[in-house]
Amino acid sequence: MDVGFIGMGRMGRAMAANLARAGHTVRAWNRSPEAARGLDGVTPVASAAEAFAGDAVVTMLADDAALETVIVAGGLLDQPERPGLHIGMSTISVALAKQLAAVHARAGVPYISAPVFGRPDVAEAGKLNIVAAGAAALIDRAGPLLDAMGAKTWRFGDDPTRANAVKLAGNFMLISAIEAMAEACALTEGHGVAGADFLDLMTNTLFASPVYKGYGASIAQNRYEPPGFILKLGAKDVRLALQAAEGAGVPMPFASVLRDGLIEAISHGDGEKDLAALARVSARRAGQG
Amino acid sequence: MDVGFIGMGRMGRAMAANLARAGHTVRAWNRSPEAARGLDGVTPVASAAEAFAGDAVVTMLADDAALETVIVAGGLLDQPERPGLHIGMSTISVALAKQLAAVHARAGVPYISAPVFGRPDVAEAGKLNIVAAGAAALIDRAGPLLDAMGAKTWRFGDDPTRANAVKLAGNFMLISAIEAMAEACALTEGHGVAGADFLDLMTNTLFASPVYKGYGASIAQNRYEPPGFILKLGAKDVRLALQAAEGAGVPMPFASVLRDGLIEAISHGDGEKDLAALARVSARRAGQG
Amino acid sequence: MDVGFIGMGRMGRAMAANLARAGHTVRAWNRSPEAARGLDGVTPVASAAEAFAGDAVVTMLADDAALETVIVAGGLLDQPERPGLHIGMSTISVALAKQLAAVHARAGVPYISAPVFGRPDVAEAGKLNIVAAGAAALIDRAGPLLDAMGAKTWRFGDDPTRANAVKLAGNFMLISAIEAMAEACALTEGHGVAGADFLDLMTNTLFASPVYKGYGASIAQNRYEPPGFILKLGAKDVRLALQAAEGAGVPMPFASVLRDGLIEAISHGDGEKDLAALARVSARRAGQG
Amino acid sequence: MDVGFIGMGRMGRAMAANLARAGHTVRAWNRSPEAARGLDGVTPVASAAEAFAGDAVVTMLADDAALETVIVAGGLLDQPERPGLHIGMSTISVALAKQLAAVHARAGVPYISAPVFGRPDVAEAGKLNIVAAGAAALIDRAGPLLDAMGAKTWRFGDDPTRANAVKLAGNFMLISAIEAMAEACALTEGHGVAGADFLDLMTNTLFASPVYKGYGASIAQNRYEPPGFILKLGAKDVRLALQAAEGAGVPMPFASVLRDGLIEAISHGDGEKDLAALARVSARRAGQG
Repeated sequence: MDVGFIGMGRMGRAMAANLARAGHTVRAWNRSPEAARGLDGVTPVASAAEAFAGDAVVTMLADDAALETVIVAGGLLDQPERPGLHIGMSTISVALAKQLAAVHARAGVPYISAPVFGRPDVAEAGKLNIVAAGAAALIDRAGPLLDAMGAKTWRFGDDPTRANAVKLAGNFMLISAIEAMAEACALTEGHGVAGADFLDLMTNTLFASPVYKGYGASIAQNRYEPPGFILKLGAKDVRLALQAAEGAGVPMPFASVLRDGLIEAISHGDGEKDLAALARVSARRAGQG
Repeated sequence: MDVGFIGMGRMGRAMAANLARAGHTVRAWNRSPEAARGLDGVTPVASAAEAFAGDAVVTMLADDAALETVIVAGGLLDQPERPGLHIGMSTISVALAKQLAAVHARAGVPYISAPVFGRPDVAEAGKLNIVAAGAAALIDRAGPLLDAMGAKTWRFGDDPTRANAVKLAGNFMLISAIEAMAEACALTEGHGVAGADFLDLMTNTLFASPVYKGYGASIAQNRYEPPGFILKLGAKDVRLALQAAEGAGVPMPFASVLRDGLIEAISHGDGEKDLAALARVSARRAGQG
Repeated sequence: MDVGFIGMGRMGRAMAANLARAGHTVRAWNRSPEAARGLDGVTPVASAAEAFAGDAVVTMLADDAALETVIVAGGLLDQPERPGLHIGMSTISVALAKQLAAVHARAGVPYISAPVFGRPDVAEAGKLNIVAAGAAALIDRAGPLLDAMGAKTWRFGDDPTRANAVKLAGNFMLISAIEAMAEACALTEGHGVAGADFLDLMTNTLFASPVYKGYGASIAQNRYEPPGFILKLGAKDVRLALQAAEGAGVPMPFASVLRDGLIEAISHGDGEKDLAALARVSARRAGQG
Repeated sequence: MDVGFIGMGRMGRAMAANLARAGHTVRAWNRSPEAARGLDGVTPVASAAEAFAGDAVVTMLADDAALETVIVAGGLLDQPERPGLHIGMSTISVALAKQLAAVHARAGVPYISAPVFGRPDVAEAGKLNIVAAGAAALIDRAGPLLDAMGAKTWRFGDDPTRANAVKLAGNFMLISAIEAMAEACALTEGHGVAGADFLDLMTNTLFASPVYKGYGASIAQNRYEPPGFILKLGAKDVRLALQAAEGAGVPMPFASVLRDGLIEAISHGDGEKDLAALARVSARRAGQG
């Protein structure tokens, strides 16, 4: 297929490369153009408008503001040539997803939401878990592209915003796992057991899953650079989860604790580190290290 | 070995049966005597004193109060015949573990802490993860017994209380996982995605581990009886974790949230249900179901 | 002075009436026009544009959205005739206050922020506490108007947004006081002491202040209608406080607890009741009443 | 009356002095004897047993452990000469109060609980607010003594433990007020408004009450020594409030936040400072100061 790709951050580059590797033609655009260069089979284009065309376009931008600026304020939906399908893969608010669904419907451009789970190395391996929602026929049409980027596509019905709610709920669970490890390690450290030893037990028994193993290793080694998932973006995701929850009348006390901890982490200079640096907050509060 | 076993609840029965199956001679005592009967190779005895003797004694009681009553207030450490080793496997407070270590040292009875991770079915399969701390030579001596009950023994050094701190930290992580699933499901339900569908994704991808799969299934099916891990005992463990943390100067905001949620669950009649019923609190707060 | 007044809710009506009573000429506009009628000395006008003129205009609208719609999106700053001073008295976000300061500066319309503390009965009595920030000369010029509406004007410097931050921090303290009373009453009720008796002691000794006496009386009588301060608006203020805090890198765990409680109150149908109905959440969680 | 007084800390000394000043004969005992000396009309005695006699005895000790050690474990209730009435004025757990009521009933020594609100300077002025519960005739009999120590006695019925629940609930409200001021100040400081200026407004308007004025002044001046109410004792009171709440099935999320903050304060070396030093936690978390 002839695919446009907008947003060539670390995740986007890996995903676009996998599309090209699977034989699709990829036109890629990024705000800072160098990020769109140097990938086999991926042609950099000079404007988002050029990318927003063809059989399908994938957007993988950092946040609501970027997506609004490029797509909505940028007027891409009003240009004469438009893509056959827009696959929105960014982690964005449920509110923006709802707005996007509406403006695409008005403009006659088919739209599905398809955010992903997986860090950049998982994206490179083409093993993302993709959370898709929108008209079933559209998700079918996107199938070859999604298959090139992910291990599996999980479907959540016709309303695109549901995929975004699922993504935010999942990221909330992920950050909760980090906080739980962090508090538990502070407890065991306070009783003379190294967090690393405690996590070795936990992540090989009850919690032998990718999230615990991955972030647990960072915490155990007290190593938060280079970042896989940037802490500030995690703070954004918690904010979006809290907003989505408030919109649905759902209190989320764990998310509130995460919010406070992430703000504290940022105020102490860890905003650009890996999300696992949230663990430093628990240690600091306990007067450890 | 000639082993006494004190505390024949569901966990204790399974563990004692595995000791007998491995060829050890087991004398078992339980406060309500019927629980000690009917196991091949396990001989019920009439008093805790008769069980507290032989090569080793294992205690597996419900809480601090039971252990204090039977062992300390019961005067077992002062009787003429005493065991060659006391393996304390109950989930108890760090404070009581410290006291037990001291009174055993005074009485000249070797003592190690060896609490376990695993629900009754895991105990029956002899696949517990055992968290041991105490003198290395004593843990070595307990080896054949521990191997009969567990899949693996994890060692945490010479001070027995460390094993208890690790156990409480682990149970805290476990209950945190339930709360995270509960809040996340309330969020997705609020946006039209069934919690069961959301958890199917999560527990087969990022959170493909025993705790998430097990408790996630209960939450997905909204089925909390019969209980595997009784909610009230989970509330007790969070209380013990908070006490242990306070003793070490460690704030634990997640544990505080769990404490509030578990109290609310008990006040709404779910104290005897499975721990996963904590999820009902999130749903009720959101006015769902 | 010749004053326009935009926003004739219960607070606005009381304030406009006091302006008229002090001898000022008042042109008043409200979205639903009947609310602007029936006050001596207050002339209803047909459009916000007619009100946005004269020596000064006061805005007292319900939230950010109303203010943005009427003032910014409504284009009032671009019309030929504009007021000599805009006194923004609504409780709005720090972010919108900042934006308002900027667009007024660009349009050449002097602007100060002057939100108020006090419920409608206090507004009627002309006894509001007014929190003002902006150029000192402008606050001086607004003096006769502010004096007609309030007991005292408290100044917080040149930057208008500071008044809004102060207002949000104050409302946060107020709602925190309600939550503290609510939890304390749940505790004493749990031990057989009626909340009303407990609050009688507290609000006549250590907490003998208007907030505790006023909201305490509502809680003691379990009477939340008619509302003085609508719970949903309180939830909005907590949200704005959390946003303002996040913008400044400040964690606010109490505010997070309030957020969760207020969402729960709304999900249980108390959103239109008085803010003191937050106390029902504590009672419900404890399985009381 | 002939009164024994046990526990001559700063509060106890002031109260005993007021009893003497009112014409009562006072025998005083303190663990470190020098604290019982040097007050007109107060005779130091060499043992708690000598003080535990006469028409009435007042106990004013630091915590549960002190009271248990001196009264229960000390065997005072078994000695031949015993007081006509025991007025327990310490801030203790509801559980210990219940036990005390039981053991006094068994020993035939009349007992009432009468904890107090007020810092040492209030005690010196004889202006404490006294929270009394127990048989009405006993409180009547204690009247002349209570009147000498307090401004007013508030009665909460026949069950002595109710007074202790009320005292804990009150101290919870007090510490909540400090936390609310602390977070609010961190918010305003984050937007350029000095906490002192903000508190000047608040404590002279909506929160013009002793607690806010007193602790607010400490926070405004960032001055936490010498302590009026020692932070570590405040942490103990929150712990007791949480225990009493848990016993009654009451979640207290604000108290949980206080617990975490106070532990953090202690871990950072502020345990012996004034309770208002809790405000330093909010500032530190925000990276301020």
